[in-house]
Amino acid sequence: MNIKISGVGSYIPTTVQLNEEFSNHEFFNNDGSKFEQENNVIIEKFKAITGICERRYAKEHHTTSDIAYFAADNAIKNAEIDPETIDYIIVAHNFGDVKHNTIQSDMVPSIAARVKHSLGIENPKCVAYDLIFGCPGWVEGVIHAKAFIKSGMAKRCLVIGAETLSRVVDKHDRDAMIFSDGAGATIIEETSEDCGILSNETATFSSKEAYYLEMGSSYNSSSSHDDVRYIKMLGRKIYEFGCLKVPQAMKECLDNSGYTISDVKKIFIHQANEKMDEAIIKRFYKQYKESVPENIMPMCIQKLGNSSVATIPTLLDLVNQGKIEGHSIEKGDIIMFASVGAGMNINAITYKV
Amino acid sequence: MNIKISGVGSYIPTTVQLNEEFSNHEFFNNDGSKFEQENNVIIEKFKAITGICERRYAKEHHTTSDIAYFAADNAIKNAEIDPETIDYIIVAHNFGDVKHNTIQSDMVPSIAARVKHSLGIENPKCVAYDLIFGCPGWVEGVIHAKAFIKSGMAKRCLVIGAETLSRVVDKHDRDAMIFSDGAGATIIEETSEDCGILSNETATFSSKEAYYLEMGSSYNSSSSHDDVRYIKMLGRKIYEFGCLKVPQAMKECLDNSGYTISDVKKIFIHQANEKMDEAIIKRFYKQYKESVPENIMPMCIQKLGNSSVATIPTLLDLVNQGKIEGHSIEKGDIIMFASVGAGMNINAITYKV
Repeated sequence: MNIKISGVGSYIPTTVQLNEEFSNHEFFNNDGSKFEQENNVIIEKFKAITGICERRYAKEHHTTSDIAYFAADNAIKNAEIDPETIDYIIVAHNFGDVKHNTIQSDMVPSIAARVKHSLGIENPKCVAYDLIFGCPGWVEGVIHAKAFIKSGMAKRCLVIGAETLSRVVDKHDRDAMIFSDGAGATIIEETSEDCGILSNETATFSSKEAYYLEMGSSYNSSSSHDDVRYIKMLGRKIYEFGCLKVPQAMKECLDNSGYTISDVKKIFIHQANEKMDEAIIKRFYKQYKESVPENIMPMCIQKLGNSSVATIPTLLDLVNQGKIEGHSIEKGDIIMFASVGAGMNINAITYKV
Repeated sequence: MNIKISGVGSYIPTTVQLNEEFSNHEFFNNDGSKFEQENNVIIEKFKAITGICERRYAKEHHTTSDIAYFAADNAIKNAEIDPETIDYIIVAHNFGDVKHNTIQSDMVPSIAARVKHSLGIENPKCVAYDLIFGCPGWVEGVIHAKAFIKSGMAKRCLVIGAETLSRVVDKHDRDAMIFSDGAGATIIEETSEDCGILSNETATFSSKEAYYLEMGSSYNSSSSHDDVRYIKMLGRKIYEFGCLKVPQAMKECLDNSGYTISDVKKIFIHQANEKMDEAIIKRFYKQYKESVPENIMPMCIQKLGNSSVATIPTLLDLVNQGKIEGHSIEKGDIIMFASVGAGMNINAITYKV
């Protein structure tokens, strides 16, 4: 028995936020000091490192559960399945529903239950739960689906990653420019075909790394809302951590798949930061004494930013639809998924299309 | 291969909040009208229905992840295992860490990653994630552990339920008296012994039931913080739903276990409300044309209130320790776990001690 992705869908929010729209922000360092550079210099430097030119924000009246539903609906249509046949709805996120201009997370009921409600699925045996696992949540949800299917507890799962990070960023922190909103969804199911998940790896590093990504106060110490907390990253530490640990996990994953580095046709990596992603892939190949092949890594971060759990399924959907120039996947291709994020968590999947 | 609970631990917060301490609260109906009865009458009526005399609140400087860690540490000691041998840490909760006197939920990093950090577990292959599934989260976490073990992806899991509901209640809502803080933890592992999980059932009802439990505004419409939301229940609807659907799920679960109703020695039911729990058990037995045996259902709600995901593992720990008068479990006993909560989710496990 194999376990394959039988459908993919995404929802790309329609509100475009350009880099220039941050030009009137007051940016501070994490020690509370003001940046000495002009904003246009800060923004150019940001773009050079992250690759991000613009990002998408959800409409004000939409929440994470809404956009998760839109993506799920597209994945169900893409898979051409009856939604009543879904055994699990797994929604990866990290903030629940945060209404526009509020600061409270809401997961009562779970985002998965809300999505099930919106999809109109009546079958009570369709179990809906949320998975909190940092940015690698969608990849981990696929691994959960594998566990349920392998153990005979499910045949078909809907795995979604959805997030509205625009609502948890500190506008006085340059990292606010990294984050975006988005949702991607996949149908995962058992199959007798020669395709699907070949191997997977997951690791949680929570010793000194646990708080590399956490919630913290605004970098603008004169901000009136002292008790409001925002998503905060130790960028340099995450970069070093990711470049060291992600390639190791990917190698372990690939080596367990029965395939070799030369078989890998595409790598779908969490769209965290262009330079970091490139450095990770370079190190991945270096472990095999290989240089990075042309066109191995499709990217959409330039236009979509980092939407956390949503980046990989969104990218997969865009490639499937032929919307990432120069990138396509064919039946039989060996591809990889890999992610890193809060926890700090890392995971990878080797997959035969 | 069987899957058993090899260790149990809990943490009962030390701050006792008596019913009388609500006597100076101003209580409102959900339509914003003030209660006509005196508070002592309201409190007596509350006690008669729910059974709750007092409840526990976490110390101001503790959060959900702290008390989850305390319970986990106790479970690890009880199981006498090396924590480095744990393959998964699964923490069920619904609000993340909410600091005292704040309204933001914090799950970055996940509560499970924080617990792993506090336990000092270094092994990166110990995967830590959070599960959002309403009050039935701990039971569902045990079912996740079963999936990982059955599929060969784990041998030993730490499953925790922890919550600080005192920080999300509306003090103008009588239901504020129901909720409490607590944490329970269990070690779940594979075994060749003749014991463990015999059967399990889960259902998500998210059609008309999806928002029976949700976040809403204070019942005191003159409250100054209009945008702050609190846990809100449609009590009557939940009562009717629970009494109808939980007995059905329990029957399906028991019937799949190979054992009969007369084999059941104890039922550990989510401590939601004494009257509802009694009505559920009565209906469960009625399906078999049996009346409820004496001493079938240990309870701790009178002293501990409803701590959501924490009630069942806490109760199991108290019974194991001989702290619930007239209740004990012996090797070979058939017992059941059952829960109901936000989603709306229901689950049950039949288990051989």
